[in-house]
Amino acid sequence: MQTRIIVTGGTFDKRYDAIKGELTFQDTHLPAILEQARLRIPVEVEINQLIDSLNMTQEHREGVLAACRAAPEQSLVVIHGTDTMAQTAQVVGAAALDKTIVFTGAMIPYSVQGSDALFNLGFALAMARSLPRNTYVAMNGRVFEWDNVRKDKDAGVFESARD
Amino acid sequence: MQTRIIVTGGTFDKRYDAIKGELTFQDTHLPAILEQARLRIPVEVEINQLIDSLNMTQEHREGVLAACRAAPEQSLVVIHGTDTMAQTAQVVGAAALDKTIVFTGAMIPYSVQGSDALFNLGFALAMARSLPRNTYVAMNGRVFEWDNVRKDKDAGVFESARD
Amino acid sequence: MQTRIIVTGGTFDKRYDAIKGELTFQDTHLPAILEQARLRIPVEVEINQLIDSLNMTQEHREGVLAACRAAPEQSLVVIHGTDTMAQTAQVVGAAALDKTIVFTGAMIPYSVQGSDALFNLGFALAMARSLPRNTYVAMNGRVFEWDNVRKDKDAGVFESARD
Amino acid sequence: MQTRIIVTGGTFDKRYDAIKGELTFQDTHLPAILEQARLRIPVEVEINQLIDSLNMTQEHREGVLAACRAAPEQSLVVIHGTDTMAQTAQVVGAAALDKTIVFTGAMIPYSVQGSDALFNLGFALAMARSLPRNTYVAMNGRVFEWDNVRKDKDAGVFESARD
Repeated sequence: MQTRIIVTGGTFDKRYDAIKGELTFQDTHLPAILEQARLRIPVEVEINQLIDSLNMTQEHREGVLAACRAAPEQSLVVIHGTDTMAQTAQVVGAAALDKTIVFTGAMIPYSVQGSDALFNLGFALAMARSLPRNTYVAMNGRVFEWDNVRKDKDAGVFESARD
Repeated sequence: MQTRIIVTGGTFDKRYDAIKGELTFQDTHLPAILEQARLRIPVEVEINQLIDSLNMTQEHREGVLAACRAAPEQSLVVIHGTDTMAQTAQVVGAAALDKTIVFTGAMIPYSVQGSDALFNLGFALAMARSLPRNTYVAMNGRVFEWDNVRKDKDAGVFESARD
Repeated sequence: MQTRIIVTGGTFDKRYDAIKGELTFQDTHLPAILEQARLRIPVEVEINQLIDSLNMTQEHREGVLAACRAAPEQSLVVIHGTDTMAQTAQVVGAAALDKTIVFTGAMIPYSVQGSDALFNLGFALAMARSLPRNTYVAMNGRVFEWDNVRKDKDAGVFESARD
Repeated sequence: MQTRIIVTGGTFDKRYDAIKGELTFQDTHLPAILEQARLRIPVEVEINQLIDSLNMTQEHREGVLAACRAAPEQSLVVIHGTDTMAQTAQVVGAAALDKTIVFTGAMIPYSVQGSDALFNLGFALAMARSLPRNTYVAMNGRVFEWDNVRKDKDAGVFESARD
């Protein structure tokens, strides 16, 4: 079974631009990360967009949904900024595609010391290959259904909308 | 649902001893890793042993089985050296405990550049919380049942015993 | 001979704030770095300020000069943001203190993959312990006297003002 | 002024071989390190040998001396294992070449978390460009003349032979 990883940017993929002196998007770290993970499963990486999720419009979210719909795979991981991950998951989840779609991201960029990116990607990939078909958010070692998740921005953690 | 992580050593947890000039076992990195992963699920870390899996005897493997049997949790991850991970998984799997037990480890130590440890732990933890009760090996982004897995030592990858 | 390291902030010491989602100043990495460097010389770390050098006013620069003047050591390293490092070095150099004072910093924070911070600190510390008394800027493996240095902001490198 | 970096191996350049499960020599990290250091000085890297300094014979040490003698540069850094660094420095120093030659290495490999390699290289390079012509060992933020240095193997630090 092949899994498709749809990249949208977010903290996960930010890297430091030494000239500008700030974290920006230049390219995705996914190919390097997948090599580091020593994967021996078929994975297809698709760059949908590379933006901060605070800058995502409804149109951007529909672009993510369109990519999920168009994907030939039944198993998808979406790398997304954490700030509006729950909103995009709701757009995708409401479409009720017959696929297992797992959103994840990172609170600290892959390129920064102490990043949660590798752990989250491993966790999300496993969930995308084992859970029943639905749309989920996987963060903090937890997995939430798309219609029951929100980010507590003060604490920087995801929780059930009914917590 | 709480997951127990049973630590046995292996490449995953080796760290460099600057005085001896070699990789040794001093302590487990698990508490630091779990903090880095920003977990918000209950996890219990238990150090069963800290050895190279090439040095594991049948007695050591039965010690791992005893720890799995004694664990109050239904969801277990066992951190293990890759060289004899399949053998220990067979000892544990044959006991047919009514739990989801996922073995994982690393080809490159957590403390060394380019390590697969974080990814593998995330992947194994997700599998330990989503798969039906049985004993598995999770490496290379794949998950194998305990009676159908072996390590190809030349290639450094896990494969189905029927591949 | 003891060397004093005067910390003023700059890219060198920025770290990622996962809640704010940006690089900020929280504390200095110097004690951790000095341990990593396995130093066996007496070094005193003094936090003068922790700011971005773009935000430095003339008053801030005079605060750096005052710290250099007050230091009992003859050998000083000043950790400084790169954008206005040359300007502060000029304020300090013009005072003609009878000390060897070496400014350095980093183009990529210590906490980010691929940082030049450790290399630059080693280079600057050696210069602060071997050069004649004067004020210098040490970056890019080069050392410049205070009255003959500028940063080429487009290329992100330091050069002689007469290059 | 160009500096030549003569690579002989040592802990500095060891990297983890995931198949063998041990630290080995495959290639030098120097080109990657020099890019990370953002150097803007002319540097020439020469691989003399890639071995553990415990395996160095008198012949190997004379190979290092020959490389130092043949180098057209006046400023040399020699990357060397720490265990017999002092001995090779003595062979080179006794030849009284009219050059500044600075030996350095690392207690923890560049490729391992917490390495002192970058700091030591920066420190040694600065010393190779500022000290009078002689042969030195630069470790632990200290610089020793070739005929007055030894490694305290229990503590893992360099000290004056007269300490």
